[in-house]
Amino acid sequence: MTQAPPALPIWDEFPHVLHTHQFSAEALEVLVQHTQAFEKAFAKRQPLPRKSRKRPWLVKLMFFEASTRTEDTSWLAAHRLHMRVRTIPHPQTFSSAAKGESLTDAIAALTRVGGLGEMRAADCLVIRHKDEGSASLAAKVVDTANGDGEIKLPLPVINAGDGTGQHPTQSFVDLYTIHQERRNGNHPLENITVLFSGDLKRGRTVNSLLYLLGKFGERHTIRVLFSTHSELGPKQDILQYLARHRIHYEFVPEFPNAIPQADVIYMTRIQRERSDGANYTTLDRGRYVFRKEYLSHLKTGAFVMHPLPINRDPEDPPAEIDDELTPLALKKDPRCAWFRQSHRGVPVRAALFDIIFAHIDAMIKKQTA
Amino acid sequence: MTQAPPALPIWDEFPHVLHTHQFSAEALEVLVQHTQAFEKAFAKRQPLPRKSRKRPWLVKLMFFEASTRTEDTSWLAAHRLHMRVRTIPHPQTFSSAAKGESLTDAIAALTRVGGLGEMRAADCLVIRHKDEGSASLAAKVVDTANGDGEIKLPLPVINAGDGTGQHPTQSFVDLYTIHQERRNGNHPLENITVLFSGDLKRGRTVNSLLYLLGKFGERHTIRVLFSTHSELGPKQDILQYLARHRIHYEFVPEFPNAIPQADVIYMTRIQRERSDGANYTTLDRGRYVFRKEYLSHLKTGAFVMHPLPINRDPEDPPAEIDDELTPLALKKDPRCAWFRQSHRGVPVRAALFDIIFAHIDAMIKKQTA
Amino acid sequence: MTQAPPALPIWDEFPHVLHTHQFSAEALEVLVQHTQAFEKAFAKRQPLPRKSRKRPWLVKLMFFEASTRTEDTSWLAAHRLHMRVRTIPHPQTFSSAAKGESLTDAIAALTRVGGLGEMRAADCLVIRHKDEGSASLAAKVVDTANGDGEIKLPLPVINAGDGTGQHPTQSFVDLYTIHQERRNGNHPLENITVLFSGDLKRGRTVNSLLYLLGKFGERHTIRVLFSTHSELGPKQDILQYLARHRIHYEFVPEFPNAIPQADVIYMTRIQRERSDGANYTTLDRGRYVFRKEYLSHLKTGAFVMHPLPINRDPEDPPAEIDDELTPLALKKDPRCAWFRQSHRGVPVRAALFDIIFAHIDAMIKKQTA
Repeated sequence: MTQAPPALPIWDEFPHVLHTHQFSAEALEVLVQHTQAFEKAFAKRQPLPRKSRKRPWLVKLMFFEASTRTEDTSWLAAHRLHMRVRTIPHPQTFSSAAKGESLTDAIAALTRVGGLGEMRAADCLVIRHKDEGSASLAAKVVDTANGDGEIKLPLPVINAGDGTGQHPTQSFVDLYTIHQERRNGNHPLENITVLFSGDLKRGRTVNSLLYLLGKFGERHTIRVLFSTHSELGPKQDILQYLARHRIHYEFVPEFPNAIPQADVIYMTRIQRERSDGANYTTLDRGRYVFRKEYLSHLKTGAFVMHPLPINRDPEDPPAEIDDELTPLALKKDPRCAWFRQSHRGVPVRAALFDIIFAHIDAMIKKQTA
Repeated sequence: MTQAPPALPIWDEFPHVLHTHQFSAEALEVLVQHTQAFEKAFAKRQPLPRKSRKRPWLVKLMFFEASTRTEDTSWLAAHRLHMRVRTIPHPQTFSSAAKGESLTDAIAALTRVGGLGEMRAADCLVIRHKDEGSASLAAKVVDTANGDGEIKLPLPVINAGDGTGQHPTQSFVDLYTIHQERRNGNHPLENITVLFSGDLKRGRTVNSLLYLLGKFGERHTIRVLFSTHSELGPKQDILQYLARHRIHYEFVPEFPNAIPQADVIYMTRIQRERSDGANYTTLDRGRYVFRKEYLSHLKTGAFVMHPLPINRDPEDPPAEIDDELTPLALKKDPRCAWFRQSHRGVPVRAALFDIIFAHIDAMIKKQTA
Repeated sequence: MTQAPPALPIWDEFPHVLHTHQFSAEALEVLVQHTQAFEKAFAKRQPLPRKSRKRPWLVKLMFFEASTRTEDTSWLAAHRLHMRVRTIPHPQTFSSAAKGESLTDAIAALTRVGGLGEMRAADCLVIRHKDEGSASLAAKVVDTANGDGEIKLPLPVINAGDGTGQHPTQSFVDLYTIHQERRNGNHPLENITVLFSGDLKRGRTVNSLLYLLGKFGERHTIRVLFSTHSELGPKQDILQYLARHRIHYEFVPEFPNAIPQADVIYMTRIQRERSDGANYTTLDRGRYVFRKEYLSHLKTGAFVMHPLPINRDPEDPPAEIDDELTPLALKKDPRCAWFRQSHRGVPVRAALFDIIFAHIDAMIKKQTA
């Protein structure tokens, strides 16, 4: 299955994955199809054919901020591809924080950029960091090493969340989930209405998914609804972007009014750790909770997504998705898609690694020809 | 050696390891014998014959509370069996704590229960968590996935310590140690007197071992002595359990009076991190210290155990086992068994993994037949 | 390449790496040559010939203090040699700290010294700990197991930093860097002037490198300059050692006066985490910053080293090396050697592991002959 690399190159130049802006609708369709092939292969629990890989690629996971699902599914995806994985242990507690090291220096040290030529300390970098733009900075650092007359050995950087910026691979997971869950007898994005609730201001997964939906605005009729606290609405630049890309959007103050209109309901956690606490405590969060009784108001085929984690802190109620729905989600109720969505991180990230390294193989072949 | 799986199934149903209550005396004897075989194989430093294993099993270690020995010996045991090990990095600092995720959601996300059918993110879960009952909750979550009409792929959960609850695999290590260290020319549990000291109220290893000894009350003459601070005595339900299972127990207030009666002296650390600090500081801890001079009062063949760690904090003396005994323990003095006991975590956990996966293999074969 | 083990044994007795004192000039030259061979092999990105290794060695990394580069390059080096690596997860938060375990007990538990004879839980220990002498203590613990009549299976301990003590493998990296970067048409240490700045009192890398240079004092003309705050000068015992070993040293209060005299400028970070805060804040740190304009004052062929991390905390300026030099370092400017120096941790540590295990192989062969 993986012998045949995707027909369409998804990068013009260098295979970094920094923000969703950079991918075309065509490239994203390729990624979805490739992921479908991987999901099938994994479901059979058979080793993948990796005949085209001769090098023992090493993926370095650098999570300067805590991560559960992204870190875990990146590890599993790399592992399934028989790549080696190096997880930097608790980088948030080491140099950068404790000893004042700059991110540039940390990246250089951990990748050996500026080092000994061919001798690389990683073949791919997956990075999460609290600062917006951190992944782009890392990419800039590693690109420095590619202009010095040697054979260019690309070192791709994958943004696994840069503060309140983006989280592009999560939005690939979300897009893929919509493809797999929506059965409308047509293209899954055709005539779709996506309702967003929760923290639309600081939630990087929302940002990333909206930018990504914009890529399909010319091809499909897409409608976006926002229903959340006025303090937590989407940023102006995203709204302008949506308008430019022919995505119709609307604000629906009353959450129950929005639900019956939506094909996909995308819930998110309010990021209290990024908020100025003051606001947070005065929010009437009960207004934007997805409750069990709403299930009966759903359109046929509609379903609820959540990038996880859901806030279920008993000392900070309410949860944004009622815990009464958890048993349904565990039982794979088609309307409760969040655990399946989380699970899809594995095939999506595997497909992405595979495309990246196929791209790099091609680059190397071209240079050494 | 491992081709011949244990003759006796040790689970009727599903191979979780949640508490010591669930195992019969017969099952425990099987585990001891199987461990002896593993210890022999490891001592030769030869690769184990793993012909019966075709699947690359993945064990996931989730330690929401810090662990040294259990985590390390689980890793080594899995590694020795050529299984893949995934250690979730510092889970205690991630979602659950920082973002309010529930344990149910975390387990579902990390196991992909509720996810994509056959595509599993782990084949075995080893979990430590501060809450009593957490491992049973995890087992309940993963069992949900087994009732939905697909082939049942069991996902066993091993309790590696649930707060002040239990720590069953530690008590397997303890039982095995008693088997290996006691040379009475008879069954090692026959006519045995076990003296417990330290934190008998909150010490989960003590709980687990007492429940386990109870399983043998019908077969062997077993006597238990408790010698500790009155505030730290064993809970009522354990005493009732012992009585029901024909284990004779006694309280001996003066520690030196208890020592000459015991075949095994099981020392434990007072868990100040779980205590209401008030009590702790007023305890006259010097009364229940195992001192070097006590060695000469030991019965022939008697020995001292400790699940480790021993408290040797210089700012919080005294240690419950005098540091003067450390050189003897390092030199493998037969009376100082605690380092050997710790070491046995490797063969015990390897034997347990092996039995679990043999059980699962059999389950799968039965379903697909 | 690695089939031919180094001709010269670098240990008389037991292959611990505890401090730089223990190595002779001859031994260090062997290590440098062996590292050169490894660097070449790695640069070709080809698997190493490991025909002489039959045992699956397990290296245990125990970093009780945070580490980035040392931990990472140790991992990579072991990985490149196809050894198995076990990283103890965040040991600084576990038993020793939280539950009062002594380092002796922790080492015994994690190595199974005092345990079950042949059944070892690690074949090599790499340890970093905040206490001076901690690595030597660990070596003492593991040596205990070698006097009990069984076949001696050496368990080498590598000191990866013991508080303000030493960090010998970093100084091997530094020595090797000087060998690779200095092109004087002669032995790289001949007629060399090394300028040290920064924290010469508590910086263990400075300590280690000075002790190591002393080993060459009889063979080469070596001059050392110190230019730093009077409160942060080198300790008396090191100065005496240098004098004894025919190393000429000088104090140069004005940093700009020292620069034009030096072949190697060794900058270090002031270790505020180890300092009594009082002093630190009153230092005029701007006096000892390596600034971009100093490049033009350098001797031909001179270069700047730094063991990293550089302090670039925006809230605690200035950095000891001006950030304007970072782009030059990333572009591999020959005068800015610090990223190459960091990178060399991989071949140096690989060569060291290789020599250690060759030594152990020979010891075993001798015993079993």
